Amino acid sequence: MAFTYLKGQLEDWVAQRERWETRRQFGAEGPNNRRLWVLACMDERLPVDEALGIRCDTPVGGGDAHLFRNAGGIVTDDAIRSAMLTINFFGTREIVVLQHTGCGMLSANAADLEKALRDKGIDVDNVPIDPSLPELKLEKGAFAKWIGMMDDVDLTCIKCVELLRNHPLIPKDVVISGWIWETEFRRLRKPDPNAATRAVTQATAASMKVKGKQPPRWS
Amino acid sequence: MAFTYLKGQLEDWVAQRERWETRRQFGAEGPNNRRLWVLACMDERLPVDEALGIRCDTPVGGGDAHLFRNAGGIVTDDAIRSAMLTINFFGTREIVVLQHTGCGMLSANAADLEKALRDKGIDVDNVPIDPSLPELKLEKGAFAKWIGMMDDVDLTCIKCVELLRNHPLIPKDVVISGWIWETEFRRLRKPDPNAATRAVTQATAASMKVKGKQPPRWS
Amino acid sequence: MAFTYLKGQLEDWVAQRERWETRRQFGAEGPNNRRLWVLACMDERLPVDEALGIRCDTPVGGGDAHLFRNAGGIVTDDAIRSAMLTINFFGTREIVVLQHTGCGMLSANAADLEKALRDKGIDVDNVPIDPSLPELKLEKGAFAKWIGMMDDVDLTCIKCVELLRNHPLIPKDVVISGWIWETEFRRLRKPDPNAATRAVTQATAASMKVKGKQPPRWS
Amino acid sequence: MAFTYLKGQLEDWVAQRERWETRRQFGAEGPNNRRLWVLACMDERLPVDEALGIRCDTPVGGGDAHLFRNAGGIVTDDAIRSAMLTINFFGTREIVVLQHTGCGMLSANAADLEKALRDKGIDVDNVPIDPSLPELKLEKGAFAKWIGMMDDVDLTCIKCVELLRNHPLIPKDVVISGWIWETEFRRLRKPDPNAATRAVTQATAASMKVKGKQPPRWS
Amino acid sequence: MAFTYLKGQLEDWVAQRERWETRRQFGAEGPNNRRLWVLACMDERLPVDEALGIRCDTPVGGGDAHLFRNAGGIVTDDAIRSAMLTINFFGTREIVVLQHTGCGMLSANAADLEKALRDKGIDVDNVPIDPSLPELKLEKGAFAKWIGMMDDVDLTCIKCVELLRNHPLIPKDVVISGWIWETEFRRLRKPDPNAATRAVTQATAASMKVKGKQPPRWS
Amino acid sequence: MAFTYLKGQLEDWVAQRERWETRRQFGAEGPNNRRLWVLACMDERLPVDEALGIRCDTPVGGGDAHLFRNAGGIVTDDAIRSAMLTINFFGTREIVVLQHTGCGMLSANAADLEKALRDKGIDVDNVPIDPSLPELKLEKGAFAKWIGMMDDVDLTCIKCVELLRNHPLIPKDVVISGWIWETEFRRLRKPDPNAATRAVTQATAASMKVKGKQPPRWS
Amino acid sequence: MAFTYLKGQLEDWVAQRERWETRRQFGAEGPNNRRLWVLACMDERLPVDEALGIRCDTPVGGGDAHLFRNAGGIVTDDAIRSAMLTINFFGTREIVVLQHTGCGMLSANAADLEKALRDKGIDVDNVPIDPSLPELKLEKGAFAKWIGMMDDVDLTCIKCVELLRNHPLIPKDVVISGWIWETEFRRLRKPDPNAATRAVTQATAASMKVKGKQPPRWS
Amino acid sequence: MAFTYLKGQLEDWVAQRERWETRRQFGAEGPNNRRLWVLACMDERLPVDEALGIRCDTPVGGGDAHLFRNAGGIVTDDAIRSAMLTINFFGTREIVVLQHTGCGMLSANAADLEKALRDKGIDVDNVPIDPSLPELKLEKGAFAKWIGMMDDVDLTCIKCVELLRNHPLIPKDVVISGWIWETEFRRLRKPDPNAATRAVTQATAASMKVKGKQPPRWS
Repeated sequence: MAFTYLKGQLEDWVAQRERWETRRQFGAEGPNNRRLWVLACMDERLPVDEALGIRCDTPVGGGDAHLFRNAGGIVTDDAIRSAMLTINFFGTREIVVLQHTGCGMLSANAADLEKALRDKGIDVDNVPIDPSLPELKLEKGAFAKWIGMMDDVDLTCIKCVELLRNHPLIPKDVVISGWIWETEFRRLRKPDPNAATRAVTQATAASMKVKGKQPPRWS
Repeated sequence: MAFTYLKGQLEDWVAQRERWETRRQFGAEGPNNRRLWVLACMDERLPVDEALGIRCDTPVGGGDAHLFRNAGGIVTDDAIRSAMLTINFFGTREIVVLQHTGCGMLSANAADLEKALRDKGIDVDNVPIDPSLPELKLEKGAFAKWIGMMDDVDLTCIKCVELLRNHPLIPKDVVISGWIWETEFRRLRKPDPNAATRAVTQATAASMKVKGKQPPRWS
Repeated sequence: MAFTYLKGQLEDWVAQRERWETRRQFGAEGPNNRRLWVLACMDERLPVDEALGIRCDTPVGGGDAHLFRNAGGIVTDDAIRSAMLTINFFGTREIVVLQHTGCGMLSANAADLEKALRDKGIDVDNVPIDPSLPELKLEKGAFAKWIGMMDDVDLTCIKCVELLRNHPLIPKDVVISGWIWETEFRRLRKPDPNAATRAVTQATAASMKVKGKQPPRWS
Repeated sequence: MAFTYLKGQLEDWVAQRERWETRRQFGAEGPNNRRLWVLACMDERLPVDEALGIRCDTPVGGGDAHLFRNAGGIVTDDAIRSAMLTINFFGTREIVVLQHTGCGMLSANAADLEKALRDKGIDVDNVPIDPSLPELKLEKGAFAKWIGMMDDVDLTCIKCVELLRNHPLIPKDVVISGWIWETEFRRLRKPDPNAATRAVTQATAASMKVKGKQPPRWS
Repeated sequence: MAFTYLKGQLEDWVAQRERWETRRQFGAEGPNNRRLWVLACMDERLPVDEALGIRCDTPVGGGDAHLFRNAGGIVTDDAIRSAMLTINFFGTREIVVLQHTGCGMLSANAADLEKALRDKGIDVDNVPIDPSLPELKLEKGAFAKWIGMMDDVDLTCIKCVELLRNHPLIPKDVVISGWIWETEFRRLRKPDPNAATRAVTQATAASMKVKGKQPPRWS
Repeated sequence: MAFTYLKGQLEDWVAQRERWETRRQFGAEGPNNRRLWVLACMDERLPVDEALGIRCDTPVGGGDAHLFRNAGGIVTDDAIRSAMLTINFFGTREIVVLQHTGCGMLSANAADLEKALRDKGIDVDNVPIDPSLPELKLEKGAFAKWIGMMDDVDLTCIKCVELLRNHPLIPKDVVISGWIWETEFRRLRKPDPNAATRAVTQATAASMKVKGKQPPRWS
Repeated sequence: MAFTYLKGQLEDWVAQRERWETRRQFGAEGPNNRRLWVLACMDERLPVDEALGIRCDTPVGGGDAHLFRNAGGIVTDDAIRSAMLTINFFGTREIVVLQHTGCGMLSANAADLEKALRDKGIDVDNVPIDPSLPELKLEKGAFAKWIGMMDDVDLTCIKCVELLRNHPLIPKDVVISGWIWETEFRRLRKPDPNAATRAVTQATAASMKVKGKQPPRWS
Repeated sequence: MAFTYLKGQLEDWVAQRERWETRRQFGAEGPNNRRLWVLACMDERLPVDEALGIRCDTPVGGGDAHLFRNAGGIVTDDAIRSAMLTINFFGTREIVVLQHTGCGMLSANAADLEKALRDKGIDVDNVPIDPSLPELKLEKGAFAKWIGMMDDVDLTCIKCVELLRNHPLIPKDVVISGWIWETEFRRLRKPDPNAATRAVTQATAASMKVKGKQPPRWS
């Protein structure tokens, strides 16, 4: 007869949850739901889940992607380190770079920021840039460049994709794409190298009233 | 009489939205909603909004915090850089460090990871750790340490808070606290230095079946 | 295997939205959803979407029709102009004329309105009827007729359909129909030339206590 | 005692509904809910209620404004006629002009449209521009201008507000304002005379790939 | 202290329900919610609760009125009996008579109905009109009148109110009113003795294509 | 091609509504939805729609049955008249009798009621039992019996079904059934002639503390 | 200024949950929400939360009472043990006994059950009645009585309340009450010692077709 | 034709409900929905329905299991009695034992509880452990053991399953399993005999700060 015991159902239920809880112990056999790593800006006005149509930082039903966020959503050594881990060891197969208009990284010139810190009495040439890793060293005079300010978010996004595509720690068969979220319009678009044909006003440092060119990192 | 023209109402409405869109241009006068910076792991099972009771990566109504996420939710130079920016230039006054049990950073020994990469033919001593910033250099032999694997998530969290408290780029009046999200139980708790009194099984590398001690970074 | 990259999904998504945003640039290849042009009264008690079962002035999910509304929902040169554009150049194939009972155009005699304006000191014979188009001229003495008041909404609706059917700027294969919304009963019906068999009290100027016959435009 | 008979309640109920049904018979004593007249484009992608935060073409609870819509949302003789009626005779006190980006009126040159009609065999110099009002005459050669195509939606909106402000049939104490709905971004903004500082790509005929200047009506 | 025992709460709860269940045993001390008796037609298109804004035949939350319904919603000996009971013995203080347009009682001439029954072989002069009450007798020849067909629903409603007002079994201080529900328009209105000023088409037997005058009961 | 004009859709829509509005003019060809006539008590605690699982007195979606309600839900001459009409002339094929426990008709002895009316000065032997139909006469002394009080609701319900089954105005192929709604338990059940096996306390006049036997109508 | 740090809020949040999780460690200082102990039958048709209006076995928001359930909801040594614990050591102040009609304990004679077990070869005189507590002994011949079948649920409930009121392990100031849930009617009532005045048919073993009197435990 | 009479539908409806109400009278032919008996703790923080995914103590749609609950959810003579009844006489085929962390039975030493009762003046050696069943006797000195406190909930749960599996009143083909609900984490798990590999802190008396070993019942 078709009678079903509760016992078996409970056993399945408990096993499924346990597998989810411990999936990281299975390495490449326990990937996130969409085998995806996202590199995004830390800005509070950038809703990654809405922008990409995924569920990541979501109370119920999430788990789609490893979500890396820093100031700018740019490629840094930390981003390389994190991408290297998820791609080589946790089954991830795709990278999405997500930056946005109106970014704080467009809102000032790095040289001015460096000066402001010096004015507060901070010796920027000798701060420990990674206090737990003294083996990581920044050359003297590179502090402003290290800050990573942008002149143009579209160009920065395009460059970040390129840097990831060519990095020895990222296998060649990983699918990589870059996207711009327009903060002003809640709309996703491809990065456009031609500023003249873009809709957005806050896509350049100039549009944000920044004078002077940034230190040479992104352009 | 109490008659209200629509014109004034529309003017207010448009002005508010414009202010929100451009708030980053106002520097410290245009902070995020809770003047908060969060340092969290990039794991897909860590719902930051739910864990902290904030609204950050949320389609509607978010904007509470700048949200930095990397592999581990650990202090790196990128984290220092991002925190420095939001705190010194965008009005942020508080830092929350959020790590979680069952973290991938507990799931392997960094030395084994390094070996696995070498076995793929990657020359880990000479990879550009930040391809856009050659001025950032990692000493030979520090690659495994740079990966940042942990032995114990509670100890790592406590150490991260300490590193931030003592960093010259973080003013002393910033409020800093560290927290552990128990992935297995969807529950937040304070980090507990005593492994014996913790509830969670996946809080140590040993609990995740990792043999050997990690390179000396977190312990 | 059936694994799907997010990249392709995002590309489709962005393309669809862009097509919708720019559909007017495609002329007849970018019609509205129902290839429909509606001529309706501007009265605040006439819910066009409910009356016709379409979604036009709707926050989410609309886009069914080009919706022309003026005082009366009558054929004017502006209506001819607008219909000409949508039908000849934007792919529209059908016209619906929607008028309603209790219309303000039934509520007074145009001669009285003209007199009221003159009493305010307005020289109605010399007002610029279209201030941006001096080439459009109204013969002296035609002001009251130009106002367009009705004696009978059903007869007016029938006449409007007829005028559109016979207009050289409207191709003969456009489907045209006229309808009356009964404001009092929230009910749609066909126009009925016989006032005696209509249910509605406010379908004629007489029923709205207007004395005298209107200038000869609609009857 | 506080006992209430149903009879009185039903009498009130019926009286309120009857008043609403017949409010147009009360002239200036029976205005719409917000004493408002809106001049908007007939485009199917322009949700007037959402854009202005009013309830007008709404199944339940509407009735806020008289809603005039034509091709472009521009000032025409029909618009003047309709505004004159609601303001002088139905208690309206405010005007809102609502145009939008990506408008069909930006999508072609009027001269090309005129030619296309002629190519279909239509004698545009002799079409009855208002078949029920032969007293309304358009000078020969003005057909393309009559079509009302725009070069720039912001400038057109600004000009429309000006034309209404200075029209003898619109009393000076009526409050008038103009607004642009950005179709691409579902966002309302003030019209901006400087195209260079606007976000929107489809705000000009040039941005919609139209060659040549429009007949001189709006610029 | 403010601690509350469950026991008392349960006792109240049970007492309230018991009172509701047995309220009829309390006579005038246990009236229905609105102390109301409604006389309405049995037609399936007459929603009494919606029409009067009460809750009577409602799964949850009803209990507002005693609801008498018969063919026509007319005064009969059964209606008098039922009204007499609720008013004299169950605390009711108000009567509402509710009839409707498009009523079946307008749809035929009673003489034709009588004939149709005779044609089926029924001896209408000798049927037991109330099989449990032989003491109730109908004079020979009164069968068609007993059927109660109407010529005009408004006049019938007005007459029913009058008959109730003057009946010796109904005290003079009972509030009585009559109403017409317009089936076609889902709208309540007062009965109007003047057919010429009514909106409704189906308010008379003539409007329902009935020939000849009804037996003299309602007019 | 599969393009649909709105015109045809609107014509169907209007035709369907008109048919519903006028269905009574079609006699047996325009029955109610379930071809059902319900005889129910007028008690405010008897929710007919819930009890029978039909939709009759329902704002939206009703129309299942002709719903006759009087004091007791008993067979009277009015019930016979109404049933005769719906069954012989409006296409009805089924009858449901619905009575309920805790009925007011069980709550007193008719003789006491008669006395109470006499005590108020009412000459019950000479009241016009149907003021519009003097041809309907009640024998002197039958007033208390005419009131129709019950001793036992189950027996009354059974008897009512029997009276309808045997009545010459009700064709033999009409399906008839009787039911009891237990007011105390919101539960439907078949009438049970054996009071001893019934659950309900308020099913008899005795259970409602009535002394003496009722005038002989139902038992 | 009124700025609030997130840190303090998170600390409160975590502390509240920890208190709830460990409340049993606080003895009488950590009672359940309503300081209540319920003794109820284990029947699957007895919804304790609904019957008592509490939230106990509820996914979200429960915690009102300690809920003891056995076959019958009767006083046993296990019930005494459990009540003793919650009342003397966990802060409980009230007892509710909840039994129900249609109970399985009414559905058979214990002597027949005993015989059925013997027929299966079970030596009922020598089964270990509590296999973990050999110190608990049942006298030979008392097996049928131990089963605890009832003759009358109301009398049993009343007796259970009495036994608890007089038990030395239950302090005198504990509030105790007994209730019957009528399974047939989803209704709570007080136990009624007089079977003749009860509504329910299944309140006695006789009503459930049981022949013979039960072993003398409850009557 | 496909016409359906209401009568048959009502008959089915009433029959189904009556069967449910009286199912206990059918013995093994009238089992609960899942043929299940649950032995669970009475703790207010143990939501049995949520924990097991069944519907038992649920206002709507329940009826899945007989639910026995006592202090601890342990095997007692009352549990044996109740299980014996449902399994041998009411068609039950499966047993689930459900205990939980943070249980009050772990929170104190039984010897201390016994002493506390003696200190209140209670003669624990002579209390009637089952006041309605004097034939049930507890040996002197066994009182503390009878209380049933645990040292370790996992071991207790495992032992309870074993006791039920080997009990002569429980047939060998009944499926039996034991489960632990982690109160702290709202999570179900299998009991784990090895305390070192369990996640939960409150799984032992020691973890709840109890000193000394319990009387020898569970370990």
